Amino acid sequence: MLEIPSKLIREATDQLSSLPGVGKKTALRLVLHLLKRSEPEIEQFSKAFTDLKRNIKNCQRCHNLSDHELCEICANPRRNNGVICIVETVKDVLAIESTQQYFGTYHVLGGVISPMEGIGPNDLSIDLLINRCENEKPNEIIFALNSSMEGDTTNFYLNRKISPLGIKTSILARGLSFGDELEYADELTLGKSIINRTPFQG
Amino acid sequence: MLEIPSKLIREATDQLSSLPGVGKKTALRLVLHLLKRSEPEIEQFSKAFTDLKRNIKNCQRCHNLSDHELCEICANPRRNNGVICIVETVKDVLAIESTQQYFGTYHVLGGVISPMEGIGPNDLSIDLLINRCENEKPNEIIFALNSSMEGDTTNFYLNRKISPLGIKTSILARGLSFGDELEYADELTLGKSIINRTPFQG
Repeated sequence: MLEIPSKLIREATDQLSSLPGVGKKTALRLVLHLLKRSEPEIEQFSKAFTDLKRNIKNCQRCHNLSDHELCEICANPRRNNGVICIVETVKDVLAIESTQQYFGTYHVLGGVISPMEGIGPNDLSIDLLINRCENEKPNEIIFALNSSMEGDTTNFYLNRKISPLGIKTSILARGLSFGDELEYADELTLGKSIINRTPFQG
Repeated sequence: MLEIPSKLIREATDQLSSLPGVGKKTALRLVLHLLKRSEPEIEQFSKAFTDLKRNIKNCQRCHNLSDHELCEICANPRRNNGVICIVETVKDVLAIESTQQYFGTYHVLGGVISPMEGIGPNDLSIDLLINRCENEKPNEIIFALNSSMEGDTTNFYLNRKISPLGIKTSILARGLSFGDELEYADELTLGKSIINRTPFQG
């Protein structure tokens, strides 16, 4: 057992080790490392978190986390406003952005419909999405929710709301990952990749 | 490449990933986790680090990191003031404390003499130690520096200063670790554990 004979060090260590995946020993190592920095540097370190919490907003258009009324993606004039990709969280936005294959905009739902966890359509930014569809009249909506029962339910629910507006809806392709061996692929994925086979480009 | 489309999130992520062993992805995960907390919780998180940096002192007696003029160990009336264990850093104090086998006091040098790195005796808390030895007249000084050329040099230097004061000096035992196999032990360690063999207690 690690007993730290200083209340100040103990408090800082406890705060760091309250983060997921950071143990007491690692936290202490980080705190002792921080102590080597100058006071202004530590102030800046701390300020980053309070500033973040105080000033972060949700983008008024896509509900993404944002510094301003509109997030950097929505405010970018080079993005294609005709396509909206629907994701669960900010992390999914970052994951798709890192592919550098998507140039449309996003809509961050904030989760999926899950009666088990008491999350209904009103707890998500669905009204904002429908308003947005009515006002912006996009050409296409891409469903990019995780494939779970809740994700599928949410896709279904959203599709029923969006289809009447005459907007095309699509969903991310499911199939074998690059590097996957057929022998070890699960039946569902392998089946999907047969059904959704694409023209061979030699 | 992870491009975060928010300056606030980017700044907080950069601060966390400036810590040793914390990558960009982990930092972002932790920042998004922190964002779920309430504003007062975040204030408390940040405050722990600024409070620490502003208020931490060195113990006037043993140079350990401390909240007060005297550290918790020096201020503890149940510690044996007749024995002083000399260590390099606070981490070594914590390592020895966690054994629960030592009940004396410490003296934290703050490093070892290293001409290569430009660290001389005056950069360490050696004067404080000598004053302390003259005033407190302890029975025993234990050298618990790491075994390196610099550590050995420092032991030698300190011993020359302390011996004239008529204080007994000792050094941590070196030998096989528990669980070590003789076959794989290095010669130096195995040799030491033969020379310093202890009476068998059946």
